[in-house]
Amino acid sequence: MVLKSFIFSIAIMTLVTSMSYASDSIPLQDFCVAINDPNNSHVTIAAANVRTLPGLNTLGISLYRLDYPPHSLNAPHTNPRGSEILVVVEGMLYVGFVTSTSAPNMKNRLFSKILHPGDVFVFPMGLIHFQLNVGKSKAVAFIALNSQLPGGNNIPNALFDSHPPISDDILAKAFQVDKKVVDYIRSQFESNNY
Amino acid sequence: MVLKSFIFSIAIMTLVTSMSYASDSIPLQDFCVAINDPNNSHVTIAAANVRTLPGLNTLGISLYRLDYPPHSLNAPHTNPRGSEILVVVEGMLYVGFVTSTSAPNMKNRLFSKILHPGDVFVFPMGLIHFQLNVGKSKAVAFIALNSQLPGGNNIPNALFDSHPPISDDILAKAFQVDKKVVDYIRSQFESNNY
Amino acid sequence: MVLKSFIFSIAIMTLVTSMSYASDSIPLQDFCVAINDPNNSHVTIAAANVRTLPGLNTLGISLYRLDYPPHSLNAPHTNPRGSEILVVVEGMLYVGFVTSTSAPNMKNRLFSKILHPGDVFVFPMGLIHFQLNVGKSKAVAFIALNSQLPGGNNIPNALFDSHPPISDDILAKAFQVDKKVVDYIRSQFESNNY
Amino acid sequence: MVLKSFIFSIAIMTLVTSMSYASDSIPLQDFCVAINDPNNSHVTIAAANVRTLPGLNTLGISLYRLDYPPHSLNAPHTNPRGSEILVVVEGMLYVGFVTSTSAPNMKNRLFSKILHPGDVFVFPMGLIHFQLNVGKSKAVAFIALNSQLPGGNNIPNALFDSHPPISDDILAKAFQVDKKVVDYIRSQFESNNY
Amino acid sequence: MVLKSFIFSIAIMTLVTSMSYASDSIPLQDFCVAINDPNNSHVTIAAANVRTLPGLNTLGISLYRLDYPPHSLNAPHTNPRGSEILVVVEGMLYVGFVTSTSAPNMKNRLFSKILHPGDVFVFPMGLIHFQLNVGKSKAVAFIALNSQLPGGNNIPNALFDSHPPISDDILAKAFQVDKKVVDYIRSQFESNNY
Amino acid sequence: MVLKSFIFSIAIMTLVTSMSYASDSIPLQDFCVAINDPNNSHVTIAAANVRTLPGLNTLGISLYRLDYPPHSLNAPHTNPRGSEILVVVEGMLYVGFVTSTSAPNMKNRLFSKILHPGDVFVFPMGLIHFQLNVGKSKAVAFIALNSQLPGGNNIPNALFDSHPPISDDILAKAFQVDKKVVDYIRSQFESNNY
Repeated sequence: MVLKSFIFSIAIMTLVTSMSYASDSIPLQDFCVAINDPNNSHVTIAAANVRTLPGLNTLGISLYRLDYPPHSLNAPHTNPRGSEILVVVEGMLYVGFVTSTSAPNMKNRLFSKILHPGDVFVFPMGLIHFQLNVGKSKAVAFIALNSQLPGGNNIPNALFDSHPPISDDILAKAFQVDKKVVDYIRSQFESNNY
Repeated sequence: MVLKSFIFSIAIMTLVTSMSYASDSIPLQDFCVAINDPNNSHVTIAAANVRTLPGLNTLGISLYRLDYPPHSLNAPHTNPRGSEILVVVEGMLYVGFVTSTSAPNMKNRLFSKILHPGDVFVFPMGLIHFQLNVGKSKAVAFIALNSQLPGGNNIPNALFDSHPPISDDILAKAFQVDKKVVDYIRSQFESNNY
Repeated sequence: MVLKSFIFSIAIMTLVTSMSYASDSIPLQDFCVAINDPNNSHVTIAAANVRTLPGLNTLGISLYRLDYPPHSLNAPHTNPRGSEILVVVEGMLYVGFVTSTSAPNMKNRLFSKILHPGDVFVFPMGLIHFQLNVGKSKAVAFIALNSQLPGGNNIPNALFDSHPPISDDILAKAFQVDKKVVDYIRSQFESNNY
Repeated sequence: MVLKSFIFSIAIMTLVTSMSYASDSIPLQDFCVAINDPNNSHVTIAAANVRTLPGLNTLGISLYRLDYPPHSLNAPHTNPRGSEILVVVEGMLYVGFVTSTSAPNMKNRLFSKILHPGDVFVFPMGLIHFQLNVGKSKAVAFIALNSQLPGGNNIPNALFDSHPPISDDILAKAFQVDKKVVDYIRSQFESNNY
Repeated sequence: MVLKSFIFSIAIMTLVTSMSYASDSIPLQDFCVAINDPNNSHVTIAAANVRTLPGLNTLGISLYRLDYPPHSLNAPHTNPRGSEILVVVEGMLYVGFVTSTSAPNMKNRLFSKILHPGDVFVFPMGLIHFQLNVGKSKAVAFIALNSQLPGGNNIPNALFDSHPPISDDILAKAFQVDKKVVDYIRSQFESNNY
Repeated sequence: MVLKSFIFSIAIMTLVTSMSYASDSIPLQDFCVAINDPNNSHVTIAAANVRTLPGLNTLGISLYRLDYPPHSLNAPHTNPRGSEILVVVEGMLYVGFVTSTSAPNMKNRLFSKILHPGDVFVFPMGLIHFQLNVGKSKAVAFIALNSQLPGGNNIPNALFDSHPPISDDILAKAFQVDKKVVDYIRSQFESNNY
């Protein structure tokens, strides 16, 4: 099956932007990202960004393949430095994002949809979004972002599994619960954040 | 007391950027943002951005005054479209942000500090951050962001008080807890998100 | 087969950039791009850009699915307003681009490669590039560009099938051939440029 | 008094922009800017920009505290690389800027206002502007600019105290006065430009 | 003489930028800028910017022809929104600019040079600069700026001929002279600023 | 004759942009670009860009003088990283560009015009364009682009004289001709691309 492997073999050259002194004469680079264990229950992400492919420097774009085991979730997160466009190539995904507070009548509005192969969805820059495999089999999607290194803030991990931890007081106030609830959630996280 | 009122009296003119056809000939505009109730337990935010002051259009900057009652928290949130610089002018704040996953050895690192009047702190674009009043009296800070409308994603509200709500299934998976915990947290939120 | 159809069902909202006064409160939009005739000999392109999806406005990204019948060519062209990243999901493509004259020792260098499913390739902004299906069956690829409407200059069509036509004199000088050769090439083009 | 000291204690991390290859994993930095002599007659400026705080690199914002002794003037100047937003926290300031010649009916228009604590004013990028303490006591303001190093062109110093000096001929023509007037003005400046 | 007339006959089309929804399909536009009186003693400027040529919208560039009568001066000014490159095509010009205060050891440094036909000089964005015809005959130069409407702040006019005027108090403090000197300079200016 | 020589004598300083940590304190640089042989039949180009003048770094602009012998052609090409503005200072040029496919009813539209001294023409970023000397004597033009190194893709050379060559199969398909025609065109090109 053609989609089982995702080998990056990329030949690129660095372009000159108006901000940096550089030439467009960069040799070929090859890179291979292995997917270690496609059978686990976590979403696996194979990345083609400037960290894995230095030649992407100044080009302002990156691409990722996501493999979702059945029922797996790409937890609510934000990309601090890019808008994202997603296309489903296999399986069925329930996706959504929440609007920011910059629109008075629209704050914290959830936009969501079930996507099938060929469907496209857009996540505007910096907004909280997620994808859930709601099909019975695995799902596969490609996403692209208009940044060479858009970053990711996995919200549950950032809040409950940071190093050092965010104080119980802050999280209890934030979620308006007792600190015991915070401690309980925190205990669910082991330091295996990807 | 000079800081009790925060009246915006702004005269601005719209500048032409290289992207838009406009002149720098805009009449005076005045605007006043009242702080309704400085004695409540919530952080109050008075905003000078393009929504309250249309003349800021194309200027790429905004400013906010935050008043923190004792023990109040500006809950973990992100600004999707701007970096933020904060200066404390009264009181004592504990502030912090969590790094994204774009740095392999640095993901979910918490950087935090206690700030006193005159202290400055920077929150890089799009990262999760918070401020807590850890003093016995009120605290006041000014923040500026390099966007005319940077937006805000209050994370607890976005996740547990969106409209329509994010499904229990997603939140339970994300926080690795039972749906009852999700329902409990959700019940704490009334639709009073600011 | 999941890849046979490519239906765009996109829910997006317009984000405010620092250059424009707008809110992130845009209603849902759905859009469906049909692929008329997957059996012809031309590359078919299904586009998710700001022209087909107005809500992409200000988001700075677009996505395309390309279906290559056997032996079909996406002729040498440039995208005037974006860098491109390509991932092959089916079949085998020979792809390449030519460097510009901005690097003294690198001008007109061809970088090319044969790609298989999962392979990724990057075409820096504005450079001449092409893709040829070198397999025995159809090929499918997704491309993303960091522009909401990157545009395309199909070089043979732009030179030999423009309206009004470029004069024979210019094309004969440019390609250093007799005008009869120019007329012959021009006669091959009927006004069916896509 | 909380505003007497202005100590920068800044923890920041360098963000990756789409133009540069960098990670968001930067260690803590502390910096303290002392205000030597708050009783002199000159405006004192304490800066938090990329020169005093290298970690601001790529973040596109800077902040300054200005202390104005009674009757002191922040002389007409321009910031070549940023728009400025100002908030008064103590005292009374008369501020203004002059429009450029890009608007036919608006060239050299002065927009000015007297500001009290809490008032905000915006100076569009690159325009000539000034602030004068018109109260009986000191005044304090914070300003932010959307550049990590916006620069400043103090006009009287740039014209009459540059190194080497601008020729008398040019200044006499520019101000339409005799060279003796130029020499007189120049003599008023000693090389104490800050 | 080929340079005596400067007729703009410009065919342009508006390009789509990543920030705005637009197509590259704009009809032809012609525009003619007459030079009324080439024999006066003032520098005359014929402009090709977005105000005279709306089709330049979003293209981020503008061009100007300057005709300098003998001994005429393009007075010290700044362009708030663009860097400038100048080429002399006739005559002899003495040109210069003054650095900003952003470099500790370089503030208020004057860089100047005498230019002959074919010479090129660059004025970085926002810095104070001037050109003086130091030859016996007229001089002609073309300048280009990386903005569709870069604007201009003629410093003597902005300071001494604004509407309403800047107060004597401010100008006297700024130039460290008596108000009588300010009044004298102001009297030299009649409201004929171009 | 003032236009016969084109000597670059440039004093510039590097400006800080919001993206890079740098000061505006750069020493003087002089540079001289000789035009070897003004009598040949090729267009000669003297460049003032960041490659010939490193101090242009971050300033986002470049300037070129083009000398066109009678009947010479600046062949169809694109500039991948900048919009171009052209002014004719001597002779008569026929110029044009072809629109991209991003506008449904406008794709491959040719916009062209005959220009005389003083005429200005704009070539939007990334579009295919050309200039032909249609006068009996030499022609001279200056062009400016809003990039410090905009690059150039000379289309005939890029397609028929690249290293290694683009395969006959691709070019024959692209131009819809027999491979013999491709070989014939290729044979016209010797490796003297500039």
